[in-house]
Amino acid sequence: MTRQVAFHLKATDGAAPTGELVLPRGVIRTPAFMPIGTAGSVKAMFLDQVRALGTDVILGNTYHLMLRPGAERVAALGGLHEFIRWPHPILTDSGGFQVMSLSALRKLDDDGVTFQSHIDGATHRLTPERSLEIQALLDSDIRMQLDECIALPAKREDIERAMRLSLKWAERSKAAFGSPEGRALFGIVQGGDDAQLRVLSAEALGDIGFDGYALGGLAVGEPQATMLRVLDVTTPALPVDRPRYLMGVGTPDDILESVRRGIDMFDCVLPTRGGRHGVAYTRMGKINLRNARHAEDSRPLDEAADWPPACDYSRAYLHHLVKAGETLAGMLLTWNNLAYYQHLMAGVRAAIADGRFDDFVAEVKEGWAGGDLPVL
Amino acid sequence: MTRQVAFHLKATDGAAPTGELVLPRGVIRTPAFMPIGTAGSVKAMFLDQVRALGTDVILGNTYHLMLRPGAERVAALGGLHEFIRWPHPILTDSGGFQVMSLSALRKLDDDGVTFQSHIDGATHRLTPERSLEIQALLDSDIRMQLDECIALPAKREDIERAMRLSLKWAERSKAAFGSPEGRALFGIVQGGDDAQLRVLSAEALGDIGFDGYALGGLAVGEPQATMLRVLDVTTPALPVDRPRYLMGVGTPDDILESVRRGIDMFDCVLPTRGGRHGVAYTRMGKINLRNARHAEDSRPLDEAADWPPACDYSRAYLHHLVKAGETLAGMLLTWNNLAYYQHLMAGVRAAIADGRFDDFVAEVKEGWAGGDLPVL
Repeated sequence: MTRQVAFHLKATDGAAPTGELVLPRGVIRTPAFMPIGTAGSVKAMFLDQVRALGTDVILGNTYHLMLRPGAERVAALGGLHEFIRWPHPILTDSGGFQVMSLSALRKLDDDGVTFQSHIDGATHRLTPERSLEIQALLDSDIRMQLDECIALPAKREDIERAMRLSLKWAERSKAAFGSPEGRALFGIVQGGDDAQLRVLSAEALGDIGFDGYALGGLAVGEPQATMLRVLDVTTPALPVDRPRYLMGVGTPDDILESVRRGIDMFDCVLPTRGGRHGVAYTRMGKINLRNARHAEDSRPLDEAADWPPACDYSRAYLHHLVKAGETLAGMLLTWNNLAYYQHLMAGVRAAIADGRFDDFVAEVKEGWAGGDLPVL
Repeated sequence: MTRQVAFHLKATDGAAPTGELVLPRGVIRTPAFMPIGTAGSVKAMFLDQVRALGTDVILGNTYHLMLRPGAERVAALGGLHEFIRWPHPILTDSGGFQVMSLSALRKLDDDGVTFQSHIDGATHRLTPERSLEIQALLDSDIRMQLDECIALPAKREDIERAMRLSLKWAERSKAAFGSPEGRALFGIVQGGDDAQLRVLSAEALGDIGFDGYALGGLAVGEPQATMLRVLDVTTPALPVDRPRYLMGVGTPDDILESVRRGIDMFDCVLPTRGGRHGVAYTRMGKINLRNARHAEDSRPLDEAADWPPACDYSRAYLHHLVKAGETLAGMLLTWNNLAYYQHLMAGVRAAIADGRFDDFVAEVKEGWAGGDLPVL
């Protein structure tokens, strides 16, 4: 099932892996962080900026794109890569998660889910087959099976029902995917915070056979410890020769701890959404530029960083832009945050290759624990 | 009154002038268009992008900056250029226009104007002396006298009263300005649509003596023909060796017709505000990307343009970004619009230098008259 899709594990340090997922449109260096390109745009960023930060792959949301501009329209315009001017790999989700979190009047049955658009109230239907059809119209490089993701905490019987439905949809998704040259399909492990159900789901997906395996239904409200415990039991049950993708995760700390447990791929809204709300991720931890302590601070966010939003502008200016609601605030802070995340991932990859992952993690955490610069 | 501020008229074609206003922080090639940097940001643009488009000078708004972050704070942070990371010339207005258009409960007297901030309702006072003090704290390169600008149509007696008050404030502004090395002060001609009052104002300002002369109180609701008639009578009454700045103007057509009448400098929100509302200025006229005709149009805005937002992205994508409310829509369209404006100004300057200004204007207007591409 490689069809020009190959995953090369290059080194491990403990359970922490580094490698390359090779696709016709480009190589994804893992562990990889995928910025969110919801509706055909990584919000407040030019895509050439995103690329320049060392981004190998971005994520597109099937739910948003199917509603607007519509998958058939994107296909008629040459596919998502051509439409948004990003010739590198794109992963699309299945749409299921946003249907459950964003749409109105959703109704799930064994065959799929019917819902109303949050944009215009129009009724739409998503099935495993339609989700894969949409992803094929978008022509994404990595496609995801449709699954049912439920919030935690939840009752075991509800978790199991959703997990078993997701397995059925995994089989239908694989059949609908077919075997397109150079494209990958990932299955999604469900099972909530139940170790037995997670292992059952992982093994069953491995039996079906996918190009990669995602862990869904995490970072949905549970404590970090719960998430990490699920990783501890699940990753050993997954095939060793395929990438593992932890969906919707997470904070920089979540990422380090998940890499430590064998995860290869991540996506999260935190750096982009945070950037639009005055939050900067830095070597010294998360900084809220809205805070009045920055109003007269002429120092840069982090003079040791080599990206302009962190080293060229004063905190006072960033604070002013945030308070004034200037678009440039989101542009600069999103840029900083994605730069920080990609810089962190590059550090993770190098540390694993050099067999010093634990030391690297300790150093990074020490920086966070030290906190922000003292008030002037 | 040059103090390292010199204006070199290099050529004229009819009444259309081209030259250079030389300031310590840089040379302003005229006719010049000044993008609006209201509150320390040219909205939705990185300032290095603004610079790369051939921008020699941007405008900062005294009203906005005095309220937030405050002139004293900007001064403590090293001045406006350092604060916003723009080392090139900045013109600041006097604050008067925005006080009258944006603030609540404003009360004008002969000494100045008292008003409430539109941000927090706090009471502030602006006098000619305080306006010049604020502009000195910001350390702008070109400063404007405080004036009273009234909307048209207006009664002659109201126009005359505002014009005479503006003249008194011109004298006080000049005294308050002092003679700072390498900084320029512009007087502002008022007089509404009354030819006699305009000439009287222009001549009286010339007698006081300024580094440049602005025409205020135009583009405030009157027809273009009225504005051009005022220019026809006013510019001959101004000193020939100083730049003339038409405040708040305008459309590309307004600019061409005003240059034809001897204007050297312009500022306007149209390209930036339009860019945030789905409007693109092009060789083929103004295009509304919100219009459904663009939804499936894979052609770029203008394949002959050499700036990315006009030649690299499809109209369908721009339409999608506008409809989806994506920040990138404003980023791309503002970039396009400022690129178009600066490209137009460069063409104006070259045409005047070559003695073919009329032909240039005719060609540009022919492009606009031809209209947008035919619908696919």
